[in-house]
Amino acid sequence: MKQVALAAYARGNPRASDFRVEEVPVPQPGRGEILLRTLYLALDPLLRFSVDETTLTGASRVEPGSVMVGPAVGEVVASNHPDYAPGDVVEARSGWQEYCVLAPDKSDYRGPPRKLDPARAPVSTALGALGGPGQTAYEGIVRVGRVTAGDTVVISAAGGAVGSIAGQIVKVLGGRAVGIAGGAAKCAALLDLGFDAAANYKAPDFAAQLAAALPQGADVYLDNVGGDVTMAVLPHLKRGARMPMCGFIAYYGVGMEGPGPDRLPGFYRQIMNKGLEIKGFAGMLGGQKGLEDIAGWMRAGRIRFAEAFVEGIEAAPEAFSSVFSGHDHVGKLLVRVAPEA
Amino acid sequence: MKQVALAAYARGNPRASDFRVEEVPVPQPGRGEILLRTLYLALDPLLRFSVDETTLTGASRVEPGSVMVGPAVGEVVASNHPDYAPGDVVEARSGWQEYCVLAPDKSDYRGPPRKLDPARAPVSTALGALGGPGQTAYEGIVRVGRVTAGDTVVISAAGGAVGSIAGQIVKVLGGRAVGIAGGAAKCAALLDLGFDAAANYKAPDFAAQLAAALPQGADVYLDNVGGDVTMAVLPHLKRGARMPMCGFIAYYGVGMEGPGPDRLPGFYRQIMNKGLEIKGFAGMLGGQKGLEDIAGWMRAGRIRFAEAFVEGIEAAPEAFSSVFSGHDHVGKLLVRVAPEA
Repeated sequence: MKQVALAAYARGNPRASDFRVEEVPVPQPGRGEILLRTLYLALDPLLRFSVDETTLTGASRVEPGSVMVGPAVGEVVASNHPDYAPGDVVEARSGWQEYCVLAPDKSDYRGPPRKLDPARAPVSTALGALGGPGQTAYEGIVRVGRVTAGDTVVISAAGGAVGSIAGQIVKVLGGRAVGIAGGAAKCAALLDLGFDAAANYKAPDFAAQLAAALPQGADVYLDNVGGDVTMAVLPHLKRGARMPMCGFIAYYGVGMEGPGPDRLPGFYRQIMNKGLEIKGFAGMLGGQKGLEDIAGWMRAGRIRFAEAFVEGIEAAPEAFSSVFSGHDHVGKLLVRVAPEA
Repeated sequence: MKQVALAAYARGNPRASDFRVEEVPVPQPGRGEILLRTLYLALDPLLRFSVDETTLTGASRVEPGSVMVGPAVGEVVASNHPDYAPGDVVEARSGWQEYCVLAPDKSDYRGPPRKLDPARAPVSTALGALGGPGQTAYEGIVRVGRVTAGDTVVISAAGGAVGSIAGQIVKVLGGRAVGIAGGAAKCAALLDLGFDAAANYKAPDFAAQLAAALPQGADVYLDNVGGDVTMAVLPHLKRGARMPMCGFIAYYGVGMEGPGPDRLPGFYRQIMNKGLEIKGFAGMLGGQKGLEDIAGWMRAGRIRFAEAFVEGIEAAPEAFSSVFSGHDHVGKLLVRVAPEA
């Protein structure tokens, strides 16, 4: 089987050359263990921290030479555990490898592999709309952002897995959704998903596009990026605006301090002058309610989930790198490692 | 009479030489106007923005050559308005001058001069514990910080008017109050006011003092300063900590961007990693309830309010400058312009 190991810690944006593809024997499950065949890998931006030398050992840092970690969907092909049978499809953090042995009873705080119901939704959505990204979108819009009918909500990285769902939740709640994405095609795709307006941060007239999309300002800013995009959004926030913060991809490779000038004084000034409310959060604050609501909205046709696939585990390093350099996909970017049975 | 005019916009921290003292005739009140004799001036740090060239005209910017603005307590010495009589003591934004003519019916959004009851509390407290600083402390601790019994609350600029009251409100609510101030004498004064611990940010072992004062971390950080002090506090905040932000004196003279490196990436990282909740606010969010509670706590002896005085309006420029360079007073720094009747 093939697996992808970390070759060297990333500096700045990860590159494909930070990884290497290896061939190794398929492992065999021992007592209480199961063998998974990987179907899909999710290239979550937060995995950037697992390939950073400055991340604390033991948290989720991968050492060079070790297999890359990350969430995946896989099929049970052999089981020595009473709760899992061959043919079951599960979501697990089984990493970048074609096969993986797991011990469900020795799982970390994330819990044992989560069994999926293929009749309920495509199993790949467990890594997107019905997984971490969907949860994050729900928390940001519903719980932290407290969006209600009539609110204008601006969303950075709106073409991503979180942002594309977040905008559609805004619409379900009766708000106005404004997305920021890189490229005219992605912006058009956002409008197609139901966003009311979109602004292309790669365009020379981005500032004008944003101003035109937010003539009355914004009540909520779901921030997934930080950096230049956030600096452009802040002047458009209304007094008392809420700013749920679920990521900061502009700074993932930067560490605690970036090159000057220091933008923190201006950030403080905006928080004070506008009475902004900022809250950082990650993942599953509110349990399963969010996923149940999203599943219901998907069944009702009110939320569509976009997925983009690259083929084969060898493609993972390059695709992961593209998450940071900007790519043309809308929705969740997945690696299809093997066909579903 | 004497008045203090702005001589030149401040750059960086204000200096006494940015102002000049002038002698002019005492003005006479016209129809509907009152004449005030100034008793006390408050040297609020936020007045920094009134002497900044980059502040929008019309907001509260003072043009060079004009009399400096600011909150004051004064006595009515002549009145052509039915609601005010000679001998009344009021709080008003009458500026840095020994006498001032005001038209109560033409007041700005801050409202007409507020009549004070000298039997209720010393009138100078209208500029401190029973004025804007008291309100800010109350909002930060009670409303935004949502402090409850058992919470550990760390307070920057704890020797200031806001901070010294905020810490005492924490104690009333059953929390643990940790103050940060400049100088061992100020820290001792905080303990005397009832703070549980204090850390001297000017001491070489500030980091160790802070760590010793926060062995379990902090649930709430009332931030009034930003800059190096806040960078030192952030690592001690617990997951989900609240950070009410009522000022950022470290950056008042800086504008939107300071000299590098850029500390915003690290700020984002702390917000996300710890799920921090930050909210900027200023003054009177919650109406009079805060001042009534504080007045009650003062009557009950549960809150003491410290004031420090400098004498004579000529002393205002130097005293204002000392607010930014650091001074040795605890509590509200006031200029006593004239004796009370």
